[in-house]
Amino acid sequence: MSEQWLDEIRWTADGLVPVIAQEAKTAKVLMVAWMNRQALRLTVEQGEAVYWSRSRQKLWHKGESSGHVQVVKDMRVDCDKDVILLEVEQKGGIACHTGRHNCFFYQLQEQRWVEVEPVLKDPKEIYVSAAQDK
Amino acid sequence: MSEQWLDEIRWTADGLVPVIAQEAKTAKVLMVAWMNRQALRLTVEQGEAVYWSRSRQKLWHKGESSGHVQVVKDMRVDCDKDVILLEVEQKGGIACHTGRHNCFFYQLQEQRWVEVEPVLKDPKEIYVSAAQDK
Repeated sequence: MSEQWLDEIRWTADGLVPVIAQEAKTAKVLMVAWMNRQALRLTVEQGEAVYWSRSRQKLWHKGESSGHVQVVKDMRVDCDKDVILLEVEQKGGIACHTGRHNCFFYQLQEQRWVEVEPVLKDPKEIYVSAAQDK
Repeated sequence: MSEQWLDEIRWTADGLVPVIAQEAKTAKVLMVAWMNRQALRLTVEQGEAVYWSRSRQKLWHKGESSGHVQVVKDMRVDCDKDVILLEVEQKGGIACHTGRHNCFFYQLQEQRWVEVEPVLKDPKEIYVSAAQDK
């Protein structure tokens, strides 16, 4: 199988590419994470988002501990081929490890970052196992 | 004026933060670029996106040469405070330097990146001056 499409990505010096996950039904930007070559290959093969966790330095099948997997509906790359945009179905309606729908819950209001999105589920209830989904 | 909100951003080692520009009226992700501290401050002060051009190593008031400015409608930061999401009004309806509406015009189709968005305006007509808007 040709891997030309993977070769075309302009990976960072660390071999990563930033990925935006956007929810298909709401068009909300859910989160940004990173993929390495294997994560991107697996994402396409499995049809679910697999990221590279920079903090844990390992592959991270999003939702592996929380159940909040992201089913891939569409994949784009930008003009410079250095940012990927995933259109996903967000299982459980929660993308953020804080238990919110998405990670962009701080809004700038008069020079302050104010939380404007509710916590839908207590992270303690989301992560029954040890590993945080991040 | 307090700059606490700027101090809270988790800047990269290079003093930058990635910024997603999303179009307010369509919810389309237009582009991703970078800001340094001054760019972010100016963006808020002026109400229009000001990025840091990594290729030109200078502040880049988006649309300065093309007229395709981005009027800021909302600003968010994510849970880790290391990615910014701008909701913008895209003047001229063209965000990409290739003359397309947005930069995410390559779609993955059977392991190939295929262009799926039309060029709305020839870049030669957009950039009458020397500096490319990028």
